Amino acid sequence: MKFGPFPDQPLFSFVEWSLRGVGQVVFQNNPLSGLIILAALVWNSWIYAVICLLGVVSSTLTALILKADKGMIRDGLYGFNGALVGLALVAFTSEDFRAGSIPSVAMLVYLICGAAFTTMAAASIGTLLAPHKVAPLTMPFVLIGWLFLFAVLKFDAIDAGPMAKPISPEQFSDTVPYVFTTWSEGIGTSIGQIFFQDNWISGYLILIAIGLNSRIGAAMAFIGAVVGTLVAALYGGPEGAVRDGLFGYNSALTAMALGGVFLVLTWRSLLYAVFGAVLASWLWASVAIFLTPIGMPVLTSTFVLVTWLMLLGQGAFKALVPVPPAESTTPEENRVRYLSEEPH
Amino acid sequence: MKFGPFPDQPLFSFVEWSLRGVGQVVFQNNPLSGLIILAALVWNSWIYAVICLLGVVSSTLTALILKADKGMIRDGLYGFNGALVGLALVAFTSEDFRAGSIPSVAMLVYLICGAAFTTMAAASIGTLLAPHKVAPLTMPFVLIGWLFLFAVLKFDAIDAGPMAKPISPEQFSDTVPYVFTTWSEGIGTSIGQIFFQDNWISGYLILIAIGLNSRIGAAMAFIGAVVGTLVAALYGGPEGAVRDGLFGYNSALTAMALGGVFLVLTWRSLLYAVFGAVLASWLWASVAIFLTPIGMPVLTSTFVLVTWLMLLGQGAFKALVPVPPAESTTPEENRVRYLSEEPH
Amino acid sequence: MKFGPFPDQPLFSFVEWSLRGVGQVVFQNNPLSGLIILAALVWNSWIYAVICLLGVVSSTLTALILKADKGMIRDGLYGFNGALVGLALVAFTSEDFRAGSIPSVAMLVYLICGAAFTTMAAASIGTLLAPHKVAPLTMPFVLIGWLFLFAVLKFDAIDAGPMAKPISPEQFSDTVPYVFTTWSEGIGTSIGQIFFQDNWISGYLILIAIGLNSRIGAAMAFIGAVVGTLVAALYGGPEGAVRDGLFGYNSALTAMALGGVFLVLTWRSLLYAVFGAVLASWLWASVAIFLTPIGMPVLTSTFVLVTWLMLLGQGAFKALVPVPPAESTTPEENRVRYLSEEPH
Repeated sequence: MKFGPFPDQPLFSFVEWSLRGVGQVVFQNNPLSGLIILAALVWNSWIYAVICLLGVVSSTLTALILKADKGMIRDGLYGFNGALVGLALVAFTSEDFRAGSIPSVAMLVYLICGAAFTTMAAASIGTLLAPHKVAPLTMPFVLIGWLFLFAVLKFDAIDAGPMAKPISPEQFSDTVPYVFTTWSEGIGTSIGQIFFQDNWISGYLILIAIGLNSRIGAAMAFIGAVVGTLVAALYGGPEGAVRDGLFGYNSALTAMALGGVFLVLTWRSLLYAVFGAVLASWLWASVAIFLTPIGMPVLTSTFVLVTWLMLLGQGAFKALVPVPPAESTTPEENRVRYLSEEPH
Repeated sequence: MKFGPFPDQPLFSFVEWSLRGVGQVVFQNNPLSGLIILAALVWNSWIYAVICLLGVVSSTLTALILKADKGMIRDGLYGFNGALVGLALVAFTSEDFRAGSIPSVAMLVYLICGAAFTTMAAASIGTLLAPHKVAPLTMPFVLIGWLFLFAVLKFDAIDAGPMAKPISPEQFSDTVPYVFTTWSEGIGTSIGQIFFQDNWISGYLILIAIGLNSRIGAAMAFIGAVVGTLVAALYGGPEGAVRDGLFGYNSALTAMALGGVFLVLTWRSLLYAVFGAVLASWLWASVAIFLTPIGMPVLTSTFVLVTWLMLLGQGAFKALVPVPPAESTTPEENRVRYLSEEPH
Repeated sequence: MKFGPFPDQPLFSFVEWSLRGVGQVVFQNNPLSGLIILAALVWNSWIYAVICLLGVVSSTLTALILKADKGMIRDGLYGFNGALVGLALVAFTSEDFRAGSIPSVAMLVYLICGAAFTTMAAASIGTLLAPHKVAPLTMPFVLIGWLFLFAVLKFDAIDAGPMAKPISPEQFSDTVPYVFTTWSEGIGTSIGQIFFQDNWISGYLILIAIGLNSRIGAAMAFIGAVVGTLVAALYGGPEGAVRDGLFGYNSALTAMALGGVFLVLTWRSLLYAVFGAVLASWLWASVAIFLTPIGMPVLTSTFVLVTWLMLLGQGAFKALVPVPPAESTTPEENRVRYLSEEPH
């Protein structure tokens, strides 16, 4: 979908591509969605908004320098992993996770290089998955996020910070009961955590940014967050982790990916997406415990794992209607295209 | 091989497919083999037999709902990973590993969803491996088994049990000497451990179930178990672990896979299979130690790893005669087919 | 490049292939380079030289027995991973890392089987990567090195040794200042560590062995070692680890691979290779910390990871000129071939 308020000049174009990159974190190829997401970040902390831009600019610029496909650059597909690497590095090395700290110069260089590296990783993982018509999703971010976070701990020139944020259900008390705000805040923060925003209002703002481009997208993100939170509550997950949106953010992304973006939305794929959201919530706990001994956060690894395992074999299941990544636009358009092709 | 005592009715057909699924854990596409394996489980504990059926039914039903290939469903190829996930979840969360405990309702839902997820994972891993004519083996089970076992520890609604079973050689005493029963029980239990049965009589019953469909298969399983046990003894593995069949179950599966199922059985592939069994025994210890800090069992990961590493490159070695997974039936038939095609 | 001082007799041929295998560790398909590298090993410890040969002979012989492609065997491509597995197993199980200990009989059998297994792993990983025109690099060694090192700890018949060598930056003191010899020895030892030689003179001898076959190769190895060491110093890596060449050996290999061997050397690929060397230095620290809880060394995993992530997507970047592994000879010849093909 071409969105056109920007004059046809190099600098404006680059700004537009970068904003689309911000939107692509939640599958929205729309600069206005990206802009509102940045506003949602500013609401929580201007530092995160600046770092998000820095990340998306670094990886998009790297793609330009390496002469990658212009269409993909324009759609922000080389930008979103860079944005996430920047956010993750600041979030997990800041004294205060919620507000974020201004990074040192050494950290800035490190962060910019990490974001640039996602461009190469995106091309590589994309190459491996191309024959199977499955997208790299946020795997470049997860991989490079983990690798760059580990190393941080060992270089004197980078202040690793306290890694103060609880990153595993083990670190929460089990005795706190669920109350209304567990739900109202937990669901909003689930959307916020996609961008490392521990702020439920920012989360609902991001939901609006999604809905602006695709109502189905926003609905699936909301359903995913609700399902993830509900499953955690039913299975006795700690209240603090539920309220922090930790059980929900992978579920929200998984529900969006399976419910309309990479599968045509039908009753069957809706159930499939809900099942994926259930799995993503359980497996967030699983991967968190796996990573505890090495002190690493889960990032969006559970979303990638569940979505890949539910999409790679899509050709074997005639009950599903795949949308090849290169043809996917919005859930609405994907569905219209399918209905117009099918004889009824 | 079509086995025909079942009338041609939907329910009977489904029972047959499920029994074939149980047999496919040890590469036997034969409902009678599956039935005898279930009897071997009942001999040890009726709980495991019921859970095994529950797992195979969940994953086979999921394949039907998703409209997977009928031929593969009929052959039990969507069932065996589900059976193993069910068994593993009960085995490692029971107070008493050997007898197993009746799972709670929350655990039952969890287990059924885990088994259903193996169907999607099998299709996905199958898609990735299809160009290389190598089967997913039990990788869907290993992956989902690990992911689902981790999460268990963190949900209040599921009683994780004591994880009482020693799962690593480190947990055994080094000072016990080998005696006759170390061997007689260790070899039988090696076969039993494929189904998490810590019972040597069940193991020999399973060997009979295999032999009923393929004598070469039973012979290779036996050779693999002997080689795995022997290597562990020669290299000073702890007596308790040897007697428990822990060094042998991956070797038994590896020897079967390489000795007749996916390579035509010749003198060369026999030696190749024995080498694989040696590697699988050593590497069981290796993976067990790798997983110790996070308290996870090895499952059949060593079998999958060694077999994949020895099969993926089969096209590069003219000394081997590959059998594509889609054409493989029994070692006997694979060999006859090869001999009839080759000019001598 | 055919190097011809050896008479055309089976035994001499086999010696030549094995020497090429030693050279291929650093991408040099030249028996004389292999011979000088062996001399560099003898300078440090004759035990390592013998073990290196044993490893290369085991994996090359396995390739012959399995009837692998003769051209690849002749080029030493089935040999170098075996050499590295042998060296790693001795290095990390010896009382004194630097000199190495003579292995026991059980260890010798184990080591020979590990080296043989690399041949199968090389074929398998090669098969998976073939469609993407990327080489397996030293991944077979890294994978089997890790698997075989773990298991060592649990078998009584193998003396695991003290694992005395510091393998992670955490194990070094932070307070030692950098001096001239930190640099002069650190850079040399970076090259030496590729072969587990904790000896800077051996390192410079290996650099000569490389330069004999390719000056660009030697220059890139040197640049990589310098960059890796410099980055570690700028980011405050511990002096002992820098001096031991631990931050540099992955960088040296990465710079060679990207700067001429698998990408035609141009100004752009030179910068790309330097960027890769920077990443490899940071990520050595990262992987070392990841592996610390299980006590494993990094081996050349960082080199493989960075190089794969920077090469697999090469087709997406028009700024790079890929050299398919099957056509790659020396950086010099790769460049001449490219220049002669391009219209200018």
